[in-house]
Amino acid sequence: MNARFYAPSASVVGSEVELPEDEAQHAGRVLRLKAGDSVSVFNGHGAEFAATVASMTKSRVTVRLDARAEAKAELAVAFTLAQAVLKGDKMDDVVRDAVMLGYAAVQPIVTARSEVSLAALTRSDRHERWQRIAVSSAKQCGRAVVPAVASPVAFEGPTSLAHLPSPQFLLVEPGASNATTAVSGVAPAAPAALTLIIGPEGGWTADELQRCANHAHPLGLGALTLRADAAAIVAATALMTHWKLI
Amino acid sequence: MNARFYAPSASVVGSEVELPEDEAQHAGRVLRLKAGDSVSVFNGHGAEFAATVASMTKSRVTVRLDARAEAKAELAVAFTLAQAVLKGDKMDDVVRDAVMLGYAAVQPIVTARSEVSLAALTRSDRHERWQRIAVSSAKQCGRAVVPAVASPVAFEGPTSLAHLPSPQFLLVEPGASNATTAVSGVAPAAPAALTLIIGPEGGWTADELQRCANHAHPLGLGALTLRADAAAIVAATALMTHWKLI
Repeated sequence: MNARFYAPSASVVGSEVELPEDEAQHAGRVLRLKAGDSVSVFNGHGAEFAATVASMTKSRVTVRLDARAEAKAELAVAFTLAQAVLKGDKMDDVVRDAVMLGYAAVQPIVTARSEVSLAALTRSDRHERWQRIAVSSAKQCGRAVVPAVASPVAFEGPTSLAHLPSPQFLLVEPGASNATTAVSGVAPAAPAALTLIIGPEGGWTADELQRCANHAHPLGLGALTLRADAAAIVAATALMTHWKLI
Repeated sequence: MNARFYAPSASVVGSEVELPEDEAQHAGRVLRLKAGDSVSVFNGHGAEFAATVASMTKSRVTVRLDARAEAKAELAVAFTLAQAVLKGDKMDDVVRDAVMLGYAAVQPIVTARSEVSLAALTRSDRHERWQRIAVSSAKQCGRAVVPAVASPVAFEGPTSLAHLPSPQFLLVEPGASNATTAVSGVAPAAPAALTLIIGPEGGWTADELQRCANHAHPLGLGALTLRADAAAIVAATALMTHWKLI
């Protein structure tokens, strides 16, 4: 199988495009490709190409786009993950897994029980790191789309997420509320897009649950007590299965 | 919430039982409990108790079982995970997640493309480590059952797994075979027990797929390309959703 590279500027067959710095280093230092080698290229917006290494210097790699190739199909439902930022580097795994599971976008949120503040996040380089992880996960799982990882926002109820797709499903851990819907109770017709809102390690506060009550469907997953960093995988898989997407 | 301890010998209300060494250390050195403190105890076979610390020395902790308590309900279907041993410590995460998702048992297997040999596994302490991880995951997610982690076996086709529950579902990655059934095509009536067979990072060989053809249902998960260590989570969630168990 040819090596596969992310080239966001790839667009017109026949043209030559330069690989981003990370990708150029990978092509040169790690894979030791040379001019004339066949590669695959995707642009992160859904286009996949058969390509050839056109030129290669220490710091710069260009590829010629030879032909469009069939891109891996995206899910019929565009899932957005509104995920409370988790402790340590767990959020890295969540972003990686969300891309692998087919999420269309990730919106990190800071909730009442998040252990990191929005100010601290903004000062750090974590947002850029999540974006890099999204690229690398898309490379690995063969998607031609790199899901956008938005800048973190504070979660202060439904208005904080008004820019995200509806319907919105708020994942609620067992025992936190008796008003949850099981996945089997979700409407059988899949929407074109939706947002899954997932809390931090400590869960939602009663105040957060109440503020969302009329805006997001409270979703339960039976009696499962999940790790916070597995919730996005399990909830998306359950909804995809419910709607027969997988 | 009271601290919760694993005491495999806990059985008769009114009796005193000694905690295993790990648990005793946790109670003493970490939590600094003392005689008279209320705790919860589970025996790993499905029984949960309200208990009281009866005596506490440096090396030995006994608890008195005061009353039976309601144990967390187990899934209506007993899932066994026959998982190819993964690289490094990824299998640790798989065991932890399998317990969290409600699997009833784990059977590590060594397949053609496993990167570890059965002999090397047998010499190492990994089997004991997985058993400890199963206990700690059950503690964390509130299950009163600790799933058994069996000794690893070589996977040489269906006879290697004849001791495991049927029906058997072999998870097949996209592209490896065109004979897969989607989850939505699985029979709608849930069996009482089943085995999910999941391959290593490198997937199944054509030979393995063929040998299983008449014995295990080849299960596909749409076009998803999963990390090997996420497959057990995704496949179980999909089947649980299909059968409306969550």
